[in-house]
Amino acid sequence: MTKKITIAIDAMGGDNAPRKNLEGLEIFVKKNLKKKDFHIILYGNKEILDKEIKNFNFPLEIIDIIHTENVVSDEETPLTAIKNSKNSSMWNAVKSQIEGKADITLSAGNTGVLLVISKMILKMMKEVSKPALAGLWPSKKGMSVVLDLGANIECDDKNLVDFSEMGAALYKSIFPNQQPYVSLLNIGSEEIKGTEHLKKAYTKLSELSNESNFLFNGYIEGNQLMDGKTNVIVTDGFTGNVALKTAEGTAKFITDSLKASLTENILSKISLIFSYFSLKRFKSRLDPSKYNGAIFLGLSGPVVKSHGGTNALGFYYSIDLCYRIIKGDLMNEIKSNLKHLDAGN
Amino acid sequence: MTKKITIAIDAMGGDNAPRKNLEGLEIFVKKNLKKKDFHIILYGNKEILDKEIKNFNFPLEIIDIIHTENVVSDEETPLTAIKNSKNSSMWNAVKSQIEGKADITLSAGNTGVLLVISKMILKMMKEVSKPALAGLWPSKKGMSVVLDLGANIECDDKNLVDFSEMGAALYKSIFPNQQPYVSLLNIGSEEIKGTEHLKKAYTKLSELSNESNFLFNGYIEGNQLMDGKTNVIVTDGFTGNVALKTAEGTAKFITDSLKASLTENILSKISLIFSYFSLKRFKSRLDPSKYNGAIFLGLSGPVVKSHGGTNALGFYYSIDLCYRIIKGDLMNEIKSNLKHLDAGN
Repeated sequence: MTKKITIAIDAMGGDNAPRKNLEGLEIFVKKNLKKKDFHIILYGNKEILDKEIKNFNFPLEIIDIIHTENVVSDEETPLTAIKNSKNSSMWNAVKSQIEGKADITLSAGNTGVLLVISKMILKMMKEVSKPALAGLWPSKKGMSVVLDLGANIECDDKNLVDFSEMGAALYKSIFPNQQPYVSLLNIGSEEIKGTEHLKKAYTKLSELSNESNFLFNGYIEGNQLMDGKTNVIVTDGFTGNVALKTAEGTAKFITDSLKASLTENILSKISLIFSYFSLKRFKSRLDPSKYNGAIFLGLSGPVVKSHGGTNALGFYYSIDLCYRIIKGDLMNEIKSNLKHLDAGN
Repeated sequence: MTKKITIAIDAMGGDNAPRKNLEGLEIFVKKNLKKKDFHIILYGNKEILDKEIKNFNFPLEIIDIIHTENVVSDEETPLTAIKNSKNSSMWNAVKSQIEGKADITLSAGNTGVLLVISKMILKMMKEVSKPALAGLWPSKKGMSVVLDLGANIECDDKNLVDFSEMGAALYKSIFPNQQPYVSLLNIGSEEIKGTEHLKKAYTKLSELSNESNFLFNGYIEGNQLMDGKTNVIVTDGFTGNVALKTAEGTAKFITDSLKASLTENILSKISLIFSYFSLKRFKSRLDPSKYNGAIFLGLSGPVVKSHGGTNALGFYYSIDLCYRIIKGDLMNEIKSNLKHLDAGN
């Protein structure tokens, strides 16, 4: 029997934890029960968890609960949290990886604290100088990976090349049957455009592309982020964060405006009867729950951050993401993509 | 009688020029004829323009045609264009301002060339070290001004403060009855977030806010760009360009997806009969024609760039923007906002 995929979950992190986290876990367990290839460790207050878990019908053998005394609050800053967090569910869920208990950690708690704790406990991979936060982004052809979404305000060409290689590895691990196509986000598609860091990263990626596991697709502009021609989009954390939030804001603006239009009078309300199922499918395609889960890359082990305010379905998607990342052997994919760095290239 | 607002139009710039430009002008003239407070100078090939203009019913006294031999092509780079462009419609439309013939210049031609030519001919204002490209952006409460949209890849705190003051002046000139609220685009709303340039600009704008014609609203994130709580959003040209194009791409992705959903089966098609007028209004609210026209700020005179591929309605909106900018006395608004620089602050 092969080793089971073990996911360490911070059961106390996020809004309405641990209830929502357990509801998400229930969806995951129901969908994957037959596979018998995974194990879950819940970190949190044992008394609360034991009581809550009675509302669910989990098979006992797939879940362990490890008691932790504290919870990292949303108000905590990374600085205060390091001092206060050693008995927290978050800290111990991350630490489980170096204890050899788990393959991956999932938390919906305080993002800043999770990033700092993960870096402290798991340490950087020796080949990588800065970690990156990667996210899933909808596209015409399915899903893309975009990074960095905010871990680093400023990035040089070495960072951008690292991010490309780690992003391609992440894409490959989640979508094992697809070919990763890497692009750099820029303000024009011509080679002469962009910052000096971007131009140098462009040259390096063009050279590496022949010997690597991904294809380099050059530059793209913001309006091509979702056209699916490329599926790993690399940028610095400032630009990536602004792009992500601008896309969220635009989507909300348009769907709010559509909702107002379709309920403005009796005729438009009648139309909703006929378009009900179509609009439901339209909404489902754009449902942010499906894209829930940002992956922290560049450490000796993978950490996934779920949105704190997501619903049970969103939390399920982030557990599923953890499962797929380990099943797809992310860490070895990353090492393989970074191999040329060991050779001193 | 007060002096007429005179707009110099590059009649040959943009797709389907000069026909589309004249169609846009026709809409403008029809809407504003009674005002008798404007004059139009068309720069372009006189033979072509004389022939084309016969299809329209323009009152003779409001339009002059000035013959120019060449047209700047879309393939031209700024470098080659400077040599080749001196007899072009674009060059002469910009030059009309220093000849005292026009108050503002409008072109739908090659953006890069227009920026370089404008800077060469009109020169920078002495208080400003970098020019900015500003655009209109839809919001819940109407329209906002966003800058820089791509004139400068890298900006320091002085540039960001200049852009804030020029952007507030632009907003005031277009919407004279509204109060400009300036925000810096960042990746968090806390004072400690962001680059050093952003933090310094934040401090300067907080100090200036007491004595200036606009209110400083601090930082916003990408998802707040369209909520209307702030109406002048300032960022560097790289981030601004990515944000603009990401918003465009997201809007297209969602509306394409909606279109596909609402035509996928007979029921959803029936719904369109009932929602026809509501969806038409929804579409009209988002129509990019309404936001057509980017304003080049920081030179001794204002230059407006229309999208090359816009339709007649979009070109009309860019003419209307020129008219409102001059009516709202943009250049004096800018000078007033920059006044503190003369005092050596």
